[in-house]
Amino acid sequence: MKRKRVAILGATGSIGESALKVARDIPERMQVVGLAANSNAEKLASAANETRAPAVCLVDETKIDALERALNYKPRILSGEAGLREIACLTDADMVLVAIVGTGGLRPALAAIEAGKDLAVASKEILVMAGEIVMQRARDNGVHVLPVDSEHNAIFQCLEGRFLQNGKRPTLNAQRSTPNAEDSRLDVGRSAFGVSDSVRRIILTASGGPFRETPRKSFDSITPEQALKHPTWNMGPKITIDSATLFNKGLEMIEAHWLFGVEMERVEVVIHPQSIVHSMVEFMDGSTLAQLSYSNMCFPIQYAVTWPDRVPNTLPPLDFSKLSKLEFFTPRYEDFPALNLARRAGETGGTSPAVMNAANEIAVAAFLDRHVCFPDIWRVVEDVMNRHTAIANPTLDAILDADQWARNEAQGCVKSLNRQKSCNDGRGGVSNR
Amino acid sequence: MKRKRVAILGATGSIGESALKVARDIPERMQVVGLAANSNAEKLASAANETRAPAVCLVDETKIDALERALNYKPRILSGEAGLREIACLTDADMVLVAIVGTGGLRPALAAIEAGKDLAVASKEILVMAGEIVMQRARDNGVHVLPVDSEHNAIFQCLEGRFLQNGKRPTLNAQRSTPNAEDSRLDVGRSAFGVSDSVRRIILTASGGPFRETPRKSFDSITPEQALKHPTWNMGPKITIDSATLFNKGLEMIEAHWLFGVEMERVEVVIHPQSIVHSMVEFMDGSTLAQLSYSNMCFPIQYAVTWPDRVPNTLPPLDFSKLSKLEFFTPRYEDFPALNLARRAGETGGTSPAVMNAANEIAVAAFLDRHVCFPDIWRVVEDVMNRHTAIANPTLDAILDADQWARNEAQGCVKSLNRQKSCNDGRGGVSNR
Repeated sequence: MKRKRVAILGATGSIGESALKVARDIPERMQVVGLAANSNAEKLASAANETRAPAVCLVDETKIDALERALNYKPRILSGEAGLREIACLTDADMVLVAIVGTGGLRPALAAIEAGKDLAVASKEILVMAGEIVMQRARDNGVHVLPVDSEHNAIFQCLEGRFLQNGKRPTLNAQRSTPNAEDSRLDVGRSAFGVSDSVRRIILTASGGPFRETPRKSFDSITPEQALKHPTWNMGPKITIDSATLFNKGLEMIEAHWLFGVEMERVEVVIHPQSIVHSMVEFMDGSTLAQLSYSNMCFPIQYAVTWPDRVPNTLPPLDFSKLSKLEFFTPRYEDFPALNLARRAGETGGTSPAVMNAANEIAVAAFLDRHVCFPDIWRVVEDVMNRHTAIANPTLDAILDADQWARNEAQGCVKSLNRQKSCNDGRGGVSNR
Repeated sequence: MKRKRVAILGATGSIGESALKVARDIPERMQVVGLAANSNAEKLASAANETRAPAVCLVDETKIDALERALNYKPRILSGEAGLREIACLTDADMVLVAIVGTGGLRPALAAIEAGKDLAVASKEILVMAGEIVMQRARDNGVHVLPVDSEHNAIFQCLEGRFLQNGKRPTLNAQRSTPNAEDSRLDVGRSAFGVSDSVRRIILTASGGPFRETPRKSFDSITPEQALKHPTWNMGPKITIDSATLFNKGLEMIEAHWLFGVEMERVEVVIHPQSIVHSMVEFMDGSTLAQLSYSNMCFPIQYAVTWPDRVPNTLPPLDFSKLSKLEFFTPRYEDFPALNLARRAGETGGTSPAVMNAANEIAVAAFLDRHVCFPDIWRVVEDVMNRHTAIANPTLDAILDADQWARNEAQGCVKSLNRQKSCNDGRGGVSNR
């Protein structure tokens, strides 16, 4: 029962906050040894003062003074991208939790892998943009890639004990008298590209977002305020809009493809408005395993930290007397094109998922700025994807180039859409197309 | 991928039938090497003619001629209890599926264990009456006890990879280059008395039976015909009545206690009318795993046979577009006393569960014969349990003596209740108490 020493990249975001709660809840199993944030000096200082993390990084160098003033102890203080990379490679860290929104987590994640750290992945972009590279480097460096998304963590729980190693089922050494903690771990990082052939389908559950039952014809008049009201999860604005368009689930399909080494056609989505079943695995024999809990990111974060152990905490378990009912529906694929776009991007592979992801980021920002209407998010992404010629087996630079290309293209799309029509500006106006 | 050679005890019952379907569905993984039935010569012959099992036993010696006439090949033909035991110990069997209703499966099950066969247990009585002895002998002989009940099989699936060996987590030998089939098995039989301390609760789901929503005041007028109409499962009459009284679930609580080595207080019941979630495990971290499938005994039987592998079959997987909703309710403990009686029997231990089980068998038969009314089943069991002084750590003989004692006591109770009142006889009469 070793205490895991964790560095948190993105300590002031919602995942970072949950990770700090976990550290507070199970101090005997989790120790925070590094903290990094983008620009919120006060919040980072407060997390540092609580955890006494020996190393702290604020990427925004202009706020280092504010950070120093707010600290009540003397950690190593780092800044900039170089500082971020340093926190990802701390000698005394066992695991790096990457919870940086956007593409910023990619290079630190790869640095952590090269430094031999296990990776707890909360940033979708890491696996969506560079799943092939990340998983290959994890295998090469013998580190584990543990999913922190509630969906992928659920699948991980359902699959546990069924991963393959080099195409072979891991074996148990029943004779070993002194269990070795390292050996008792399932080989996750290295197992991708070969999840057990006992799996037929990965079934990602989706809450369906706030517009699950909204008729298609009303989509044009959806305001950012409406889209930001998520029925079950309380998250940042980008991911909340992704949850409303279902791009969030589309990104997760691609993540699952890489994390668990299953073909895109075996990754499916089921709408489950209650967000109690966090995802499922259907096995070859027709049997399904599901993971259930209340919606709280502390569950998956803790499991990533304590795995393969389960340890008590203060989180409330399910109360079946209050659960009442769980519903499941087929997604409205026609009305929410994000799922099919993501399937296409995942199947095409190469630079395609990075392009989809980048175009979506720009489109979401434009929607939040009221420059385009809600369905334009899908249009922008599809337009940019249509114009892209995917590069197979890309290098990291090629991926980042494609990302930049897609952002520029998407900006162009947004401008063109903006010129064409007057979108809803939150005062009830409806654009017609 | 070895073909498992299976002997089926109780080949003509509903579990036996399902086992034959599985053998038909996955012939490359399951071979029937022995068949035994109580008295249905024609059905046994038909199963034998299909499977070409080399050894066949009919317990009822008076029907051996009928069996011989109906066979179209020349297997070894056995009869009587001795023949049953011989089928349980066949040299060429790897596994014995015990699906004999009542206490008749107990001695053959123990014989199979002594002969080094893995046990697939469908007969509740084996673990309810003699769980301590059965699990201890399984450990002593190094054989696995695999649950075939849909509930326990579901729990087994949720727990897989989390069993303890001698109080220690099984370890993986990541370096082994030639996986050994024997080593890759989790140590189920030997693991009981020590399921991983990562488990907080075992949650058995119950359909609730046909009277799930029936008011308590109407229980006296329930007819055998009404009680035999189970909403989701098609089973024999005894188990169907047990499902209506919830004694079935009570027996399963005790089975789970022994199979998974968890204290009775950590075994709980949740009503789930759709019978899609077959049971769940709540872990120490508040997370829950559930196993889901349509109600079909072929699922758990196949898993017991192919475990730790999963192999494709022709069984329909869940169609989430048709599933709609899953409901969960707290049991009506006051109105269905079977659950509390079972908890008491399991906690008392020793001969207590055998006494509860035996009294229930007599009471169910009396209800089906219209000698007592529906709630009398609980009354008879409670009365007999109240009169019993449990023997701790009993021998098999002591258990069978207690079983016989309880049957006699229950018969007495039934007679006394029968004299006291006129029960409902299926023509609408209602007894008053």
